[in-house]
Amino acid sequence: MKYVEGLHCIKCAKKYEADPERYLCDDCEDGILDVDYDYSKIKRDWSKEILKNTSDQRIWRYTPLLPIEENTEKPKLAVGNTPIYDIQVLADELGIRKLIIKDDGLNPTASLKDRASAMAVVKAQEAGAVTVACSSTGNAASSLAGNIASMGGRMKSVIFVPDRAPAGKLAQLLVYGADVVSVKGTYEEAFYLSAAAIDKWGWYNRNAAINPYLVEGKKTVSIELAEQLNWQMPDWLVFSVGDGCTIAGAYKGLYDLIQLGFIDKMPRLLGVQAEGCAPITEAFKSNEKLKVSKEDTIADSIAVGKPRNWIKAVRAVRDSEGDMINVSDQKILQMMKTLGEKSGVFAEPAGVAGLAGLKKAVADGIVKKDQSAAVVITGNGLKDIKNARKAAGNPIEVEPDLDKLTEIFKKMGVI
Amino acid sequence: MKYVEGLHCIKCAKKYEADPERYLCDDCEDGILDVDYDYSKIKRDWSKEILKNTSDQRIWRYTPLLPIEENTEKPKLAVGNTPIYDIQVLADELGIRKLIIKDDGLNPTASLKDRASAMAVVKAQEAGAVTVACSSTGNAASSLAGNIASMGGRMKSVIFVPDRAPAGKLAQLLVYGADVVSVKGTYEEAFYLSAAAIDKWGWYNRNAAINPYLVEGKKTVSIELAEQLNWQMPDWLVFSVGDGCTIAGAYKGLYDLIQLGFIDKMPRLLGVQAEGCAPITEAFKSNEKLKVSKEDTIADSIAVGKPRNWIKAVRAVRDSEGDMINVSDQKILQMMKTLGEKSGVFAEPAGVAGLAGLKKAVADGIVKKDQSAAVVITGNGLKDIKNARKAAGNPIEVEPDLDKLTEIFKKMGVI
Ligand SMILES: [Zn+2]
Ligand SMILES: [Zn+2]
Repeated sequence: MKYVEGLHCIKCAKKYEADPERYLCDDCEDGILDVDYDYSKIKRDWSKEILKNTSDQRIWRYTPLLPIEENTEKPKLAVGNTPIYDIQVLADELGIRKLIIKDDGLNPTASLKDRASAMAVVKAQEAGAVTVACSSTGNAASSLAGNIASMGGRMKSVIFVPDRAPAGKLAQLLVYGADVVSVKGTYEEAFYLSAAAIDKWGWYNRNAAINPYLVEGKKTVSIELAEQLNWQMPDWLVFSVGDGCTIAGAYKGLYDLIQLGFIDKMPRLLGVQAEGCAPITEAFKSNEKLKVSKEDTIADSIAVGKPRNWIKAVRAVRDSEGDMINVSDQKILQMMKTLGEKSGVFAEPAGVAGLAGLKKAVADGIVKKDQSAAVVITGNGLKDIKNARKAAGNPIEVEPDLDKLTEIFKKMGVI
Repeated sequence: MKYVEGLHCIKCAKKYEADPERYLCDDCEDGILDVDYDYSKIKRDWSKEILKNTSDQRIWRYTPLLPIEENTEKPKLAVGNTPIYDIQVLADELGIRKLIIKDDGLNPTASLKDRASAMAVVKAQEAGAVTVACSSTGNAASSLAGNIASMGGRMKSVIFVPDRAPAGKLAQLLVYGADVVSVKGTYEEAFYLSAAAIDKWGWYNRNAAINPYLVEGKKTVSIELAEQLNWQMPDWLVFSVGDGCTIAGAYKGLYDLIQLGFIDKMPRLLGVQAEGCAPITEAFKSNEKLKVSKEDTIADSIAVGKPRNWIKAVRAVRDSEGDMINVSDQKILQMMKTLGEKSGVFAEPAGVAGLAGLKKAVADGIVKKDQSAAVVITGNGLKDIKNARKAAGNPIEVEPDLDKLTEIFKKMGVI
């Protein structure tokens, strides 16, 4: 880890060595750690030009900014390099100048969380572990299972999910060969059971909120976006927010790029939560400590009542002079359909919540008409068909008969 | 279309102008057409080196080999550039020297068919059409709907599906805003109704089997694979076979590359059908005309009882000195799990049928132990969760209690 100086606690600033199994500060409750880099050293060895000539399209192209040993074996899955789309028709509909959609649902296991899980597989090896465990509402789980599987049988994943996890996500991680523990309870209870099991059996911990290295994986999403935009960032960068790790990761990536002089200003971060589970928005607005929330939303990937990375998330939004906003499930479903129709991008509810939030932020005057925004779609709609059906409506049913079809089409105004 | 000489009928060799609405030969029943190129002209203007320096990663990087006008607007979706994985542990398990998996389920709408649908959107515009229609068991449909949607509302898709199409595929195309017609009947009946409607209302026809341009889109899968393998092709290239278009397209791409001198030999093509629906294998083995088959397999994307492109498919396999083989649904499900566990690639049944067929071909001595193979995974497992669950088994259910978990883990041998 040529460029890593160490870790520091985001509460008390105490410093630690960057040990792969160092998760939290010894002195603080919820003492989340952050990775420190020697930016001047990175600047000496690395440049936009070198990056341009790097053939690896995966997140490992950003290795100088990652807390890993260069030679640790990488999981095989091609994580990263997800497409961006400049969608004027959607910008017009929202009433802003320019809109970029980055479809991170096209990662190998169909969500942004591949970026963190790929990192977990690397760090687990550096810690000498064979088994990696996590608790997750779904995407962290399937991405871990998939990335572990891509090591070809040499590593193993154990995954704790609350029993409300959608069938699609379960099937996926079972096919990947994970040991899946379906916990009869909340996300919270699944989390504590996983923590106890990890402690008891010494597995590597892929719970993103407390593992400081995973946020470093997630940060590749904003670094990659910046590179794709030729280092010209939009005014706003929008994420849906659950545990708080993704938006915190995005901020860290942008922070790194500013230190290196790759970009010249921090875009404002807009964090979007679901109305039925918005503890981070509340903490941000009230300037108080986080209060645990109910988890009442269809957007299961961001239904986190007690988010563990809320401090980093709030700090990210505040430092970027951004904002937080909540959206209803109904608006999320509507936006799933709008996004699909206008762009051909199919997103899961949590994946599209950010875009629904951006629409509301424009209506509320937070985002201005002459501004630009980029929204990262965090997960694929195929992960949650039940909700997609709610958004989509039903097909036209007809006998195999052209006259009957003509009649129906006329009634519906199709022809 | 600088390099297109025209079309010719694969039955009677009659030549036609490359009109975007020219689908079939006037003189022959099932007179499928093939696109002819002026390879010497392409060779003069294009090279591996130029390709290497082409920044567009989408299928349009191969425009000199595509039957399109250079300036027709392309659908926005980032079709192509799907990853390849060299998976030794799976090669070992199958008993061959080397195995490459190309995960075409990572295309924007999660299947290889994006390659054909993107082409359809271009050709429809060249024909002056606004509405594009097709009948499909699912992937052709959702890829068309998605690629049309990415035109931002300027075009429209009408899609005919048999009522057995899986819910995942339906939800996806409804979200994309297609007019979906669910036909109470077989794939066959959906096809005829779509043909009648297309004829009646003058829509552009995205039925791959009869539209000669769509196969040209599909051929990008083998061209892309060749480029990714630095023009060193494996001994065998394996595809699941339904309508016959994909394997015919792959063959065409390889044929083109040989004409240009980009590769020096044609790999053998292994076509794999499901036991419950294998009319092309039968025609290949018997050397007789195709007999319509029942459609009795879980691999719905290749459950085509009356494949329209069987002649091109059989010719492709024969000309490459390849072979055809059938696999049972049980073997397909088993291989779905094996692939997931060993590689982190999650494939739908039809997507993994090719790999199951390769395993059988090795056991049968068709593919030799010292040979190499590449298998294209044609669709994402998230498209068909019901069957994935059959392959995957069930999670471990437990109360949120470490003692209870320990007990269960001990019983199951996890710890
Ligand atoms: Zn501390
Ligand atoms: Zn003819």
